[in-house]
Amino acid sequence: MISKNDIETAHERIKSYIFKTPVLTSDVLNAMAGAELFFKCENLQQIGAFKARGAMNAVLSLSPEVRAKGVATHSSGNHAQALARAAHIMGIKSYIVMPSNAPEIKKRGVLSFQGEIFECKPNLASREATLLQVVQRTGATEIHPFNNHEVITGQATAGKELFEEISDLDIVMPPVGGGGLLSGTVLAAKYFSPSTNVIAAEPEGADDAYRSLQSGKIEPSQSNSIADGLLTALGEKTFAIIRDNVQDIVTVSDDEITAAMRLLWENLKVVVEPSGAVPLAAVLKSKEKFRNKRIGIILSGGNVDLGRAFKLFGF
Amino acid sequence: MISKNDIETAHERIKSYIFKTPVLTSDVLNAMAGAELFFKCENLQQIGAFKARGAMNAVLSLSPEVRAKGVATHSSGNHAQALARAAHIMGIKSYIVMPSNAPEIKKRGVLSFQGEIFECKPNLASREATLLQVVQRTGATEIHPFNNHEVITGQATAGKELFEEISDLDIVMPPVGGGGLLSGTVLAAKYFSPSTNVIAAEPEGADDAYRSLQSGKIEPSQSNSIADGLLTALGEKTFAIIRDNVQDIVTVSDDEITAAMRLLWENLKVVVEPSGAVPLAAVLKSKEKFRNKRIGIILSGGNVDLGRAFKLFGF
Repeated sequence: MISKNDIETAHERIKSYIFKTPVLTSDVLNAMAGAELFFKCENLQQIGAFKARGAMNAVLSLSPEVRAKGVATHSSGNHAQALARAAHIMGIKSYIVMPSNAPEIKKRGVLSFQGEIFECKPNLASREATLLQVVQRTGATEIHPFNNHEVITGQATAGKELFEEISDLDIVMPPVGGGGLLSGTVLAAKYFSPSTNVIAAEPEGADDAYRSLQSGKIEPSQSNSIADGLLTALGEKTFAIIRDNVQDIVTVSDDEITAAMRLLWENLKVVVEPSGAVPLAAVLKSKEKFRNKRIGIILSGGNVDLGRAFKLFGF
Repeated sequence: MISKNDIETAHERIKSYIFKTPVLTSDVLNAMAGAELFFKCENLQQIGAFKARGAMNAVLSLSPEVRAKGVATHSSGNHAQALARAAHIMGIKSYIVMPSNAPEIKKRGVLSFQGEIFECKPNLASREATLLQVVQRTGATEIHPFNNHEVITGQATAGKELFEEISDLDIVMPPVGGGGLLSGTVLAAKYFSPSTNVIAAEPEGADDAYRSLQSGKIEPSQSNSIADGLLTALGEKTFAIIRDNVQDIVTVSDDEITAAMRLLWENLKVVVEPSGAVPLAAVLKSKEKFRNKRIGIILSGGNVDLGRAFKLFGF
């Protein structure tokens, strides 16, 4: 089990490589929600997402001998760039397996940190087979995007910072995809703000975490949402933490996500990707549940192509 | 003359009504500029602009008797909303003279703080005549957007915060319109970071401050730029401070402003209005001048209609 001391140690370890992101508030959004909202801006984090925390902690936690052989992962998202950055900082190689249809902007992000990209077919079997080959050939260590204790511990530092800055939160809300941020936030609340309830938010079209809480086992994801960071199913490590500690998961439609995203751009003046807008969408959808509460909302990332955002907003 | 103590007193006075805005950095933008850039995010300030500081300080500086009669201004920009907000907080009336063609979003902003709007024709003579009538009828005090010592003193607190957070800046760069932020920043540098040079940035199509520095007298503005916050000429109070203390003004084209604005949205993940992107445009244009320097850049505001921004970006 990840301890309080593990999270404190991880925070000290990664502190000089990440930003202590600001917490922003908006009178307009508070009035709309009928609640007091505190936005932890991980969209303003290094590489534009909280993923910088977990990847950095995982790379720094390896022994020098193991680390020297490099790190590898399969990811088409923010973890790929986060891992390439962490490896680049430590002067080691990173091997990133990406599907052939991954967006150019994500590939460029990885390349900007000298990550080596291996293309595979856009399905899980091909990703895993390609990653296995790369790991066998190079001796690199696989760093999973979320099903990894050092990654989870790193993600927990976002919640830790939030609780240290804003006291007496009734609720903290991260979005949930693979569950790395959610399980990290669960642990941060448990150790640094035990009176705070953790409620997750999830797209309706990828509500596997919601269904997993209901059924008591990990359900597969259907992966149908604009929130591209939240399309994966939970892992056994994240589910084990989430199962017993998450009070509730609120699901929202893509239209609700887009509306919340636009409200964040217009009122908070920050660029948030669809995944990051999911918790605000949940607060605005289920107002009775959240009325008059002090709510910490984790804006998980800001990596969205402006042209895509423009289309989502209907311009 | 505005003293160090005036700025410190103003800061204490307004502190609980404004945000201490974050300072963000970006490795990508540093690499592009060949310099170390520190972005003071006044776009994340209350009402989305540094104007919240000056208006709040001006309203709080009035005697209770004078204040009770309300405040008035003519403005179609961020100052209108800032003054309406400050008045609303103090429970007094605000009377805002706005041209009939002012954007709906700006009117709504004023109305959201119960400001009373008086429409006038879209020219300076009509604005001033209407304001005079309103002041005579109501007994309200006019708070000029920049040619006012309490407003300048309030704007100086942005630079003060920046210098307190980031030491050893070689240069600090605000944009210049009427000169409230620039003259405030000059005073903040003088008192809180005397080794820091102040270099302003201005649109080519509204380069009246640049020409005023050359000629030694206040030149009129031609007002032809997308940077709608920077179209006014200097006032005698701001020019008196700027004349002897600003090393240099760099002018940039609208295309350069748009490109810098997009870089800020994409890399810093913040929404910046055209006026706020002018200093980064200047740094990227005159790279030799800024190479290897530590530069504080004041992102003055984030109030831009998303549809307009996307058009500027060419989507």
